[in-house]
Amino acid sequence: MTQLASPPSYGRSDVERVVRDVLVRHFASSANARTKRNPLVVNISARHVHLSPEHLEVLFGKGAQLEVQKELYQDGFFAATQTVAVVGPRRKMLPEVRVLGPCRGASQVELAFTDGIALGIELPVRCSGDHHDTPGCILVGPKGVVELTSGVIRAERHVHMGPDDLAYYGVKDQDRMHLRIESPGCTTVFEELLVRAGKGIKLEVHLDTDEGNAVNLVKATRVELVKPERCGCKHK
Amino acid sequence: MTQLASPPSYGRSDVERVVRDVLVRHFASSANARTKRNPLVVNISARHVHLSPEHLEVLFGKGAQLEVQKELYQDGFFAATQTVAVVGPRRKMLPEVRVLGPCRGASQVELAFTDGIALGIELPVRCSGDHHDTPGCILVGPKGVVELTSGVIRAERHVHMGPDDLAYYGVKDQDRMHLRIESPGCTTVFEELLVRAGKGIKLEVHLDTDEGNAVNLVKATRVELVKPERCGCKHK
Repeated sequence: MTQLASPPSYGRSDVERVVRDVLVRHFASSANARTKRNPLVVNISARHVHLSPEHLEVLFGKGAQLEVQKELYQDGFFAATQTVAVVGPRRKMLPEVRVLGPCRGASQVELAFTDGIALGIELPVRCSGDHHDTPGCILVGPKGVVELTSGVIRAERHVHMGPDDLAYYGVKDQDRMHLRIESPGCTTVFEELLVRAGKGIKLEVHLDTDEGNAVNLVKATRVELVKPERCGCKHK
Repeated sequence: MTQLASPPSYGRSDVERVVRDVLVRHFASSANARTKRNPLVVNISARHVHLSPEHLEVLFGKGAQLEVQKELYQDGFFAATQTVAVVGPRRKMLPEVRVLGPCRGASQVELAFTDGIALGIELPVRCSGDHHDTPGCILVGPKGVVELTSGVIRAERHVHMGPDDLAYYGVKDQDRMHLRIESPGCTTVFEELLVRAGKGIKLEVHLDTDEGNAVNLVKATRVELVKPERCGCKHK
Protein backbone atom coordinates (compact mmCIF):
# COMPACT_ATOMS: atom_id res chain seq x y z
CA MET A 1 0.00 0.00 0.00
CA THR A 2 2.75 2.44 0.78
CA GLN A 3 3.71 2.94 -2.84
CA LEU A 4 0.59 5.05 -3.14
CA ALA A 5 2.37 7.82 -1.42
CA SER A 6 4.54 8.89 -4.29
CA PRO A 7 3.49 7.63 -7.71
CA PRO A 8 4.88 10.00 -10.32
CA SER A 9 1.48 11.21 -11.53
CA TYR A 10 0.28 12.52 -8.20
CA GLY A 11 0.80 16.14 -7.29
CA ARG A 12 0.96 17.66 -3.87
CA SER A 13 -2.72 18.56 -3.84
CA ASP A 14 -3.66 14.97 -4.71
CA VAL A 15 -1.66 13.66 -1.82
CA GLU A 16 -3.22 16.21 0.48
CA ARG A 17 -6.70 15.23 -0.66
CA VAL A 18 -6.07 11.53 -0.08
CA VAL A 19 -4.64 12.13 3.34
CA ARG A 20 -7.62 14.25 4.22
CA ASP A 21 -10.04 11.59 3.03
CA VAL A 22 -8.24 8.87 4.93
CA LEU A 23 -8.27 10.87 8.09
CA VAL A 24 -11.85 12.00 7.82
CA ARG A 25 -12.95 8.36 7.52
CA HIS A 26 -10.52 7.26 10.17
CA PHE A 27 -11.94 9.67 12.71
CA ALA A 28 -15.55 9.64 11.57
CA SER A 29 -16.62 7.29 14.33
CA SER A 30 -14.95 9.13 17.19
CA ALA A 31 -15.98 12.53 18.47
CA ASN A 32 -19.01 13.38 16.38
CA ALA A 33 -22.64 12.38 16.27
CA ARG A 34 -22.50 10.82 19.72
CA THR A 35 -24.78 11.56 22.60
CA LYS A 36 -25.73 14.87 24.16
CA ARG A 37 -23.41 17.79 23.58
CA ASN A 38 -23.23 20.08 26.58
CA PRO A 39 -21.93 23.64 26.36
CA LEU A 40 -18.17 23.79 26.89
CA VAL A 41 -17.50 26.25 29.68
CA VAL A 42 -13.91 27.38 30.29
CA ASN A 43 -13.39 29.14 33.60
CA ILE A 44 -10.33 30.63 35.23
CA SER A 45 -9.57 29.48 38.76
CA ALA A 46 -7.83 32.38 40.43
CA ARG A 47 -5.62 31.49 43.38
CA HIS A 48 -7.62 30.03 46.24
CA VAL A 49 -7.50 27.90 49.35
CA HIS A 50 -9.42 24.81 50.45
CA LEU A 51 -9.55 24.26 54.20
CA SER A 52 -10.08 21.25 56.42
CA PRO A 53 -12.74 21.79 59.13
CA GLU A 54 -9.97 21.80 61.75
CA HIS A 55 -7.97 24.51 59.98
CA LEU A 56 -11.13 26.57 59.42
CA GLU A 57 -11.64 26.69 63.20
CA VAL A 58 -8.02 27.57 63.90
CA LEU A 59 -8.06 30.41 61.36
CA PHE A 60 -11.57 31.77 61.95
CA GLY A 61 -12.44 30.64 65.49
CA LYS A 62 -14.22 27.77 67.22
CA GLY A 63 -17.45 26.84 65.47
CA ALA A 64 -16.71 28.97 62.38
CA GLN A 65 -18.59 28.09 59.21
CA LEU A 66 -17.82 29.10 55.64
CA GLU A 67 -20.28 31.65 54.31
CA VAL A 68 -21.32 31.70 50.67
CA GLN A 69 -20.20 34.78 48.79
CA LYS A 70 -20.87 33.38 45.30
CA GLU A 71 -22.00 30.01 43.98
CA LEU A 72 -19.57 28.38 41.54
CA TYR A 73 -20.54 26.73 38.26
CA GLN A 74 -20.43 23.23 39.78
CA ASP A 75 -23.44 22.64 42.01
CA GLY A 76 -22.69 22.72 45.72
CA PHE A 77 -19.39 24.59 45.47
CA PHE A 78 -18.90 28.23 46.35
CA ALA A 79 -16.48 31.07 46.94
CA ALA A 80 -16.66 31.96 50.61
CA THR A 81 -16.72 35.43 52.08
CA GLN A 82 -13.61 34.41 54.03
CA THR A 83 -10.06 35.02 52.86
CA VAL A 84 -6.70 34.10 54.38
CA ALA A 85 -3.20 35.47 53.98
CA VAL A 86 -0.71 33.07 52.40
CA VAL A 87 2.85 33.61 53.60
CA GLY A 88 5.82 32.10 51.78
CA PRO A 89 9.27 31.07 52.99
CA ARG A 90 10.80 34.52 52.46
CA ARG A 91 8.03 36.25 54.40
CA LYS A 92 6.47 37.42 51.16
CA MET A 93 2.69 37.43 51.44
CA LEU A 94 -0.47 37.26 49.35
CA PRO A 95 -2.76 39.09 51.75
CA GLU A 96 -6.25 38.04 50.60
CA VAL A 97 -6.60 34.59 49.10
CA ARG A 98 -10.20 33.44 48.73
CA VAL A 99 -11.38 30.31 50.54
CA LEU A 100 -13.57 27.96 48.49
CA GLY A 101 -16.22 25.80 50.08
CA PRO A 102 -17.27 23.36 51.26
CA CYS A 103 -14.44 22.21 53.54
CA ARG A 104 -12.28 19.24 52.51
CA GLY A 105 -10.36 16.51 54.26
CA ALA A 106 -7.01 18.26 53.78
CA SER A 107 -6.22 21.91 53.27
CA GLN A 108 -4.78 22.89 49.89
CA VAL A 109 -3.49 26.12 48.36
CA GLU A 110 -3.81 26.51 44.58
CA LEU A 111 -1.64 29.18 42.99
CA ALA A 112 -0.50 30.21 39.52
CA PHE A 113 3.23 30.29 38.74
CA THR A 114 3.08 34.08 38.81
CA ASP A 115 1.90 33.82 42.43
CA GLY A 116 4.61 31.28 43.20
CA ILE A 117 7.27 33.65 41.89
CA ALA A 118 5.85 36.46 44.04
CA LEU A 119 5.91 34.22 47.13
CA GLY A 120 9.21 32.51 46.42
CA ILE A 121 7.59 29.06 46.29
CA GLU A 122 8.49 26.63 43.53
CA LEU A 123 5.13 25.12 42.66
CA PRO A 124 4.72 21.51 41.59
CA VAL A 125 1.94 20.76 39.10
CA ARG A 126 -0.44 18.37 40.82
CA CYS A 127 -3.93 17.01 40.48
CA SER A 128 -6.09 18.45 43.24
CA GLY A 129 -5.68 16.34 46.40
CA ASP A 130 -2.28 14.92 45.43
CA HIS A 131 0.06 16.42 48.00
CA HIS A 132 3.04 14.09 47.68
CA ASP A 133 6.29 16.01 47.65
CA THR A 134 4.63 19.43 47.71
CA PRO A 135 5.74 22.53 49.61
CA GLY A 136 3.88 24.07 52.50
CA CYS A 137 3.23 27.65 53.61
CA ILE A 138 1.75 29.61 56.46
CA LEU A 139 -1.92 30.57 56.46
CA VAL A 140 -2.97 33.54 58.56
CA GLY A 141 -6.59 34.16 59.49
CA PRO A 142 -8.27 36.64 61.84
CA LYS A 143 -8.22 34.19 64.74
CA GLY A 144 -5.12 32.10 64.24
CA VAL A 145 -2.30 30.70 62.16
CA VAL A 146 -1.81 27.33 60.44
CA GLU A 147 1.51 26.01 59.24
CA LEU A 148 0.90 23.70 56.30
CA THR A 149 3.71 21.22 55.76
CA SER A 150 2.45 20.39 52.26
CA GLY A 151 -0.45 21.07 49.90
CA VAL A 152 0.71 24.15 47.98
CA ILE A 153 0.32 23.34 44.28
CA ARG A 154 -0.32 24.59 40.83
CA ALA A 155 -3.47 22.66 39.98
CA GLU A 156 -3.08 20.56 36.89
CA ARG A 157 -5.22 21.75 33.98
CA HIS A 158 -8.36 19.70 33.95
CA VAL A 159 -11.80 19.28 32.55
CA HIS A 160 -14.76 18.24 34.68
CA MET A 161 -17.17 15.91 32.93
CA GLY A 162 -20.40 14.10 33.59
CA PRO A 163 -21.38 10.75 32.05
CA ASP A 164 -22.93 12.46 28.97
CA ASP A 165 -19.68 14.27 28.29
CA LEU A 166 -17.56 11.11 28.59
CA ALA A 167 -19.85 9.48 26.02
CA TYR A 168 -19.87 12.48 23.72
CA TYR A 169 -16.10 12.83 23.60
CA GLY A 170 -15.39 9.10 23.80
CA VAL A 171 -13.12 9.38 26.83
CA LYS A 172 -13.03 8.06 30.38
CA ASP A 173 -12.10 9.42 33.79
CA GLN A 174 -8.36 10.24 34.06
CA ASP A 175 -7.92 10.38 30.26
CA ARG A 176 -6.26 13.39 28.67
CA MET A 177 -7.69 15.88 26.18
CA HIS A 178 -6.33 18.93 24.40
CA LEU A 179 -8.06 22.29 24.67
CA ARG A 180 -7.76 24.68 21.74
CA ILE A 181 -8.69 28.30 22.35
CA GLU A 182 -9.00 30.73 19.46
CA SER A 183 -8.35 34.25 20.58
CA PRO A 184 -7.21 37.25 18.51
CA GLY A 185 -3.41 37.19 18.34
CA CYS A 186 -3.02 34.48 20.98
CA THR A 187 -4.61 31.23 19.83
CA THR A 188 -3.27 28.37 21.92
CA VAL A 189 -3.58 24.62 22.42
CA PHE A 190 -3.28 23.47 26.01
CA GLU A 191 -2.35 19.82 25.83
CA GLU A 192 -3.27 16.94 28.08
CA LEU A 193 -5.95 18.31 30.34
CA LEU A 194 -6.87 15.68 32.90
CA VAL A 195 -10.44 14.39 32.60
CA ARG A 196 -12.08 14.35 36.03
CA ALA A 197 -15.48 12.72 35.78
CA GLY A 198 -18.36 12.18 38.15
CA LYS A 199 -22.14 11.97 38.25
CA GLY A 200 -23.86 15.32 38.46
CA ILE A 201 -20.74 17.14 37.25
CA LYS A 202 -21.08 19.82 34.56
CA LEU A 203 -18.71 20.08 31.61
CA GLU A 204 -16.17 22.70 32.68
CA VAL A 205 -12.50 23.37 32.04
CA HIS A 206 -10.41 25.00 34.74
CA LEU A 207 -7.40 27.06 33.73
CA ASP A 208 -5.35 29.21 36.05
CA THR A 209 -4.82 32.95 35.70
CA ASP A 210 -1.51 32.58 33.81
CA GLU A 211 -3.14 30.35 31.23
CA GLY A 212 -6.25 32.53 31.06
CA ASN A 213 -4.21 35.68 30.54
CA ALA A 214 -1.86 34.00 28.05
CA VAL A 215 -4.87 33.43 25.77
CA ASN A 216 -6.82 36.54 26.81
CA LEU A 217 -9.72 34.23 27.60
CA VAL A 218 -12.29 37.01 27.90
CA LYS A 219 -11.78 37.80 24.20
CA ALA A 220 -11.71 34.17 23.01
CA THR A 221 -13.84 33.47 19.96
CA ARG A 222 -13.89 29.66 20.09
CA VAL A 223 -13.04 26.87 22.51
CA GLU A 224 -12.76 23.23 21.55
CA LEU A 225 -11.83 19.99 23.31
CA VAL A 226 -9.85 17.63 21.10
CA LYS A 227 -9.16 14.00 21.83
CA PRO A 228 -5.44 13.40 21.28
CA GLU A 229 -5.25 10.85 18.49
CA ARG A 230 -2.08 10.11 16.67
CA CYS A 231 -2.62 10.51 12.97
CA GLY A 232 1.03 10.43 11.92
CA CYS A 233 1.10 14.12 11.13
CA LYS A 234 3.59 16.51 12.66
CA HIS A 235 1.24 17.62 15.40
CA LYS A 236 1.14 15.40 18.42
CA MET B 1 -7.86 6.87 -4.96
CA THR B 2 -10.18 7.52 -2.09
CA GLN B 3 -11.49 3.97 -1.95
CA LEU B 4 -8.20 3.06 -0.35
CA ALA B 5 -9.41 4.49 2.87
CA SER B 6 -11.77 1.72 3.82
CA PRO B 7 -11.37 -1.55 1.94
CA PRO B 8 -12.86 -4.31 4.07
CA SER B 9 -9.55 -6.08 4.66
CA TYR B 10 -7.78 -3.14 6.26
CA GLY B 11 -7.80 -2.74 10.02
CA ARG B 12 -7.32 0.43 11.99
CA SER B 13 -3.58 -0.10 12.38
CA ASP B 14 -3.19 -0.54 8.62
CA VAL B 15 -4.93 2.74 8.00
CA GLU B 16 -2.79 4.44 10.61
CA ARG B 17 0.36 3.06 9.01
CA VAL B 18 -0.62 4.24 5.55
CA VAL B 19 -1.51 7.67 6.76
CA ARG B 20 1.80 7.88 8.59
CA ASP B 21 3.70 6.82 5.50
CA VAL B 22 1.88 9.29 3.30
CA LEU B 23 2.55 12.10 5.67
CA VAL B 24 6.18 11.25 6.25
CA ARG B 25 6.78 11.37 2.50
CA HIS B 26 4.59 14.42 2.07
CA PHE B 27 6.60 16.40 4.59
CA ALA B 28 9.97 14.87 3.89
CA SER B 29 11.03 17.77 1.73
CA SER B 30 9.93 20.53 4.04
CA ALA B 31 11.50 21.12 7.45
CA ASN B 32 14.31 18.60 7.58
CA ALA B 33 17.66 18.18 5.96
CA ARG B 34 17.78 21.79 4.82
CA THR B 35 20.43 24.27 5.60
CA LYS B 36 21.99 25.19 8.90
CA ARG B 37 19.96 24.46 12.00
CA ASN B 38 20.50 27.09 14.64
CA PRO B 39 19.64 26.54 18.30
CA LEU B 40 16.07 27.52 19.07
CA VAL B 41 16.14 30.00 21.93
CA VAL B 42 12.86 30.90 23.65
CA ASN B 43 13.07 33.97 25.86
CA ILE B 44 10.53 35.76 27.98
CA SER B 45 10.15 39.48 27.40
CA ALA B 46 9.08 40.92 30.72
CA ARG B 47 7.23 44.25 30.54
CA HIS B 48 9.44 46.98 29.16
CA VAL B 49 9.52 50.36 27.46
CA HIS B 50 11.16 51.63 24.28
CA LEU B 51 11.79 55.36 24.19
CA SER B 52 12.25 57.90 21.43
CA PRO B 53 15.32 60.14 21.89
CA GLU B 54 13.00 63.07 22.65
CA HIS B 55 11.14 61.22 25.38
CA LEU B 56 14.41 59.96 26.85
CA GLU B 57 15.49 63.57 27.35
CA VAL B 58 12.16 64.61 28.85
CA LEU B 59 12.20 61.72 31.31
CA PHE B 60 15.89 61.63 32.18
CA GLY B 61 17.12 65.15 31.42
CA LYS B 62 18.78 67.02 28.57
CA GLY B 63 21.56 65.01 26.95
CA ALA B 64 20.63 61.78 28.75
CA GLN B 65 21.89 58.54 27.23
CA LEU B 66 20.73 55.00 27.87
CA GLU B 67 23.28 53.00 29.86
CA VAL B 68 23.77 49.29 29.28
CA GLN B 69 22.76 47.14 32.24
CA LYS B 70 22.72 43.84 30.34
CA GLU B 71 23.19 42.87 26.72
CA LEU B 72 20.23 41.05 25.18
CA TYR B 73 20.46 37.94 23.00
CA GLN B 74 20.14 39.95 19.78
CA ASP B 75 23.34 41.82 19.01
CA GLY B 76 23.18 45.55 19.67
CA PHE B 77 20.15 45.46 21.97
CA PHE B 78 20.27 45.86 25.72
CA ALA B 79 18.36 46.35 28.94
CA ALA B 80 19.20 49.80 30.24
CA THR B 81 19.95 50.75 33.81
CA GLN B 82 17.07 53.21 33.51
CA THR B 83 13.48 52.44 34.50
CA VAL B 84 10.31 54.52 34.29
CA ALA B 85 6.98 54.38 36.11
CA VAL B 86 3.98 53.51 33.92
CA VAL B 87 0.74 55.08 35.14
CA GLY B 88 -2.64 53.89 33.88
CA PRO B 89 -5.97 55.68 33.53
CA ARG B 90 -7.09 54.87 37.08
CA ARG B 91 -3.87 56.15 38.60
CA LYS B 92 -2.67 52.61 39.12
CA MET B 93 1.08 52.38 38.60
CA LEU B 94 3.84 49.95 37.70
CA PRO B 95 6.69 51.74 39.44
CA GLU B 96 9.79 50.28 37.75
CA VAL B 97 9.47 49.27 34.13
CA ARG B 98 12.78 48.58 32.43
CA VAL B 99 13.81 50.67 29.41
CA LEU B 100 15.33 48.72 26.51
CA GLY B 101 17.89 50.23 24.19
CA PRO B 102 18.79 51.60 21.78
CA CYS B 103 16.20 54.37 21.36
CA ARG B 104 13.56 54.07 18.65
CA GLY B 105 11.58 56.43 16.47
CA ALA B 106 8.44 56.14 18.62
CA SER B 107 8.07 55.24 22.27
CA GLN B 108 6.29 51.96 23.02
CA VAL B 109 5.20 50.17 26.19
CA GLU B 110 5.00 46.36 26.07
CA LEU B 111 2.98 44.71 28.82
CA ALA B 112 1.48 41.30 29.56
CA PHE B 113 -2.28 41.01 30.11
CA THR B 114 -1.63 40.53 33.82
CA ASP B 115 0.05 43.95 33.83
CA GLY B 116 -2.83 45.43 31.84
CA ILE B 117 -5.33 44.15 34.41
CA ALA B 118 -3.25 45.67 37.22
CA LEU B 119 -3.13 49.03 35.40
CA GLY B 120 -6.70 49.01 34.12
CA ILE B 121 -5.58 49.15 30.49
CA GLU B 122 -7.20 46.92 27.89
CA LEU B 123 -4.23 45.84 25.80
CA PRO B 124 -4.46 45.26 22.07
CA VAL B 125 -2.21 42.55 20.62
CA ARG B 126 0.08 44.27 18.11
CA CYS B 127 3.25 43.66 16.23
CA SER B 128 5.97 45.88 17.65
CA GLY B 129 5.77 49.33 16.02
CA ASP B 130 2.11 49.04 15.02
CA HIS B 131 0.39 51.67 17.14
CA HIS B 132 -2.88 52.07 15.26
CA ASP B 133 -5.82 52.18 17.65
CA THR B 134 -3.72 51.53 20.77
CA PRO B 135 -4.12 53.11 24.20
CA GLY B 136 -1.66 55.49 25.80
CA CYS B 137 -0.39 55.98 29.34
CA ILE B 138 1.73 58.30 31.39
CA LEU B 139 5.46 57.68 31.79
CA VAL B 140 7.19 59.17 34.80
CA GLY B 141 10.96 59.53 35.00
CA PRO B 142 13.27 61.24 37.47
CA LYS B 143 13.35 64.46 35.41
CA GLY B 144 9.97 64.67 33.77
CA VAL B 145 6.70 63.20 32.56
CA VAL B 146 5.53 62.07 29.12
CA GLU B 147 1.92 61.52 28.18
CA LEU B 148 1.79 58.88 25.46
CA THR B 149 -1.38 59.06 23.38
CA SER B 150 -0.78 55.59 21.94
CA GLY B 151 1.78 52.79 21.88
CA VAL B 152 0.77 50.62 24.84
CA ILE B 153 0.49 47.05 23.53
CA ARG B 154 0.77 43.41 24.26
CA ALA B 155 3.47 42.44 21.78
CA GLU B 156 2.36 39.77 19.38
CA ARG B 157 4.18 36.48 19.89
CA HIS B 158 6.96 36.33 17.40
CA VAL B 159 10.08 34.55 16.31
CA HIS B 160 13.16 36.40 15.10
CA MET B 161 14.97 34.70 12.25
CA GLY B 162 18.00 35.18 10.06
CA PRO B 163 18.29 34.03 6.45
CA ASP B 164 19.57 30.57 7.51
CA ASP B 165 16.52 30.06 9.68
CA LEU B 166 14.09 31.08 6.94
CA ALA B 167 15.72 28.51 4.68
CA TYR B 168 15.81 25.82 7.34
CA TYR B 169 12.13 26.13 8.23
CA GLY B 170 10.98 26.95 4.70
CA VAL B 171 9.24 30.18 5.67
CA LYS B 172 9.52 33.86 4.83
CA ASP B 173 9.29 37.12 6.73
CA GLN B 174 5.78 37.76 8.13
CA ASP B 175 4.79 34.08 7.87
CA ARG B 176 3.32 32.30 10.86
CA MET B 177 4.66 29.32 12.79
CA HIS B 178 3.47 27.31 15.76
CA LEU B 179 5.64 26.88 18.83
CA ARG B 180 5.21 23.71 20.87
CA ILE B 181 6.69 23.67 24.36
CA GLU B 182 6.87 20.45 26.33
CA SER B 183 6.85 21.12 30.04
CA PRO B 184 5.82 18.81 32.87
CA GLY B 185 2.07 19.16 33.37
CA CYS B 186 1.72 22.17 31.10
CA THR B 187 2.70 21.32 27.54
CA THR B 188 1.32 23.95 25.19
CA VAL B 189 1.20 24.92 21.52
CA PHE B 190 1.30 28.65 20.87
CA GLU B 191 -0.11 29.12 17.40
CA GLU B 192 0.75 31.63 14.72
CA LEU B 193 3.89 33.29 15.94
CA LEU B 194 4.84 36.04 13.56
CA VAL B 195 8.12 35.48 11.70
CA ARG B 196 10.24 38.63 11.85
CA ALA B 197 13.31 38.17 9.73
CA GLY B 198 16.43 40.18 9.07
CA LYS B 199 20.09 39.83 8.30
CA GLY B 200 22.26 39.32 11.35
CA ILE B 201 19.25 38.30 13.43
CA LYS B 202 19.55 35.24 15.68
CA LEU B 203 16.83 32.62 15.95
CA GLU B 204 14.83 33.61 19.02
CA VAL B 205 11.23 33.38 20.15
CA HIS B 206 9.80 36.07 22.39
CA LEU B 207 6.96 35.18 24.74
CA ASP B 208 5.57 37.41 27.43
CA THR B 209 5.48 36.60 31.15
CA ASP B 210 1.93 35.23 31.04
CA GLU B 211 2.84 32.81 28.29
CA GLY B 212 6.14 31.91 29.94
CA ASN B 213 4.48 31.23 33.29
CA ALA B 214 1.58 29.34 31.68
CA VAL B 215 4.11 26.79 30.38
CA ASN B 216 6.60 27.11 33.27
CA LEU B 217 9.25 27.82 30.67
CA VAL B 218 12.17 27.38 33.06
CA LYS B 219 11.22 23.70 33.42
CA ALA B 220 10.52 23.09 29.74
CA THR B 221 12.06 19.91 28.36
CA ARG B 222 11.63 20.58 24.65
CA VAL B 223 10.79 23.46 22.32
CA GLU B 224 9.90 23.07 18.68
CA LEU B 225 8.84 25.38 15.86
CA VAL B 226 6.26 23.82 13.57
CA LYS B 227 5.24 25.13 10.18
CA PRO B 228 1.44 25.14 10.08
CA GLU B 229 0.55 22.75 7.29
CA ARG B 230 -2.93 21.44 6.83
CA CYS B 231 -2.83 17.68 6.68
CA GLY B 232 -6.55 17.06 7.02
CA CYS B 233 -6.25 15.82 10.58
CA LYS B 234 -8.21 17.28 13.46
CA HIS B 235 -5.40 19.54 14.55
CA LYS B 236 -5.14 22.82 12.77
